[in-house]
Amino acid sequence: MGQKQIDFFYFFGSCYAYLSIMRIDKLAREAGVSVRWRPFNVRTVMAENNIALRTQTAKVKYMWRDIERRAASHGIPFVQPPIWPTDPDLLANRVGIVAAEGGWCEPYTKASFHSWLIKHEALGDPGTLTSVLTQLGKDPNEVIDEANSDRTIAKLATETDAARSFGVFGSPSFVVDGEMFWGDDRLEEAVAWAASGHKLQEPRVTH
Amino acid sequence: MGQKQIDFFYFFGSCYAYLSIMRIDKLAREAGVSVRWRPFNVRTVMAENNIALRTQTAKVKYMWRDIERRAASHGIPFVQPPIWPTDPDLLANRVGIVAAEGGWCEPYTKASFHSWLIKHEALGDPGTLTSVLTQLGKDPNEVIDEANSDRTIAKLATETDAARSFGVFGSPSFVVDGEMFWGDDRLEEAVAWAASGHKLQEPRVTH
Repeated sequence: MGQKQIDFFYFFGSCYAYLSIMRIDKLAREAGVSVRWRPFNVRTVMAENNIALRTQTAKVKYMWRDIERRAASHGIPFVQPPIWPTDPDLLANRVGIVAAEGGWCEPYTKASFHSWLIKHEALGDPGTLTSVLTQLGKDPNEVIDEANSDRTIAKLATETDAARSFGVFGSPSFVVDGEMFWGDDRLEEAVAWAASGHKLQEPRVTH
Repeated sequence: MGQKQIDFFYFFGSCYAYLSIMRIDKLAREAGVSVRWRPFNVRTVMAENNIALRTQTAKVKYMWRDIERRAASHGIPFVQPPIWPTDPDLLANRVGIVAAEGGWCEPYTKASFHSWLIKHEALGDPGTLTSVLTQLGKDPNEVIDEANSDRTIAKLATETDAARSFGVFGSPSFVVDGEMFWGDDRLEEAVAWAASGHKLQEPRVTH
């Protein structure tokens, strides 16, 4: 038996991550599994793996429709965001690192994705960040200074190294004792893997 | 209400297609949905979309493990094939076109994937094809001649054009009245879409 824990690697700016952000709590809680929220720089690992999503025209077009359908099926509010890509300087992601160290990454993540996908504000924008951080009872200037420090820049790189070491190449990804699952559509499998102590999930289709 | 029919676009040489090949019959039958088996040239649409799977090292490594896990969860026999990629000259795919026109595409497809993934024979190899076609009661020479004719070459291109026109960029893909679903993990959604007359599937998670 391994630990009943999921490392949840995700990027501020990934719409598929949003689906997991809205779902992981309940699924993990019901399965008795704990979750570590771990922002990382997906751009680095995508570039390393020769994955250039934005140039894959048909795939990007499909992505928006697919997320729209799946959000609706889960009762999660979603429309294609007018702002994408977002967080050009990775500031929203680095604030995620600060928040993870401070134990408030989950509410910060949910508030950030809400501001981006529901209120259509840019991630990493100082105004957006100030609003989100104030709402969480944080001092925006203090947090943003910390997010811009060399230490936090290095920590985001360390977390990205950790993701890479598990074979992660996209967001969201879930790691359970070294076993990696990619994509919101694998969230249930990752939870089952953690809850069952690494057994393959029960057959869902019989032949 | 649209037609309760799924266009199943797939490629001889796609392992994710194998999972759908082994599952689509039962799922569609239970939902009262008919299936059109439509081989197409996924290499063309992947190249057009700047998708070069073989150079995405981490993604390919993940793919084998992901298929292994999902095959096990569905009770489908699978090990990573020693031969991949396969069907270099698209002959197995063009025989699929001949088989689709003759109404025997489904048994030909299942027998071909069995020869490749269970018996570890190369797709498109004359010996493999002769064995598969003989088993289906077909004259191998006659079928292979037809598969190599200009007419069949043109028909594979036409089917690939049809897939592209629906936004298809990978294998397997499912199209229901113009709505496209990509990947074996979307098979249930495509079947539900066809069965329900295009309504979004019922929520599976409540919040």
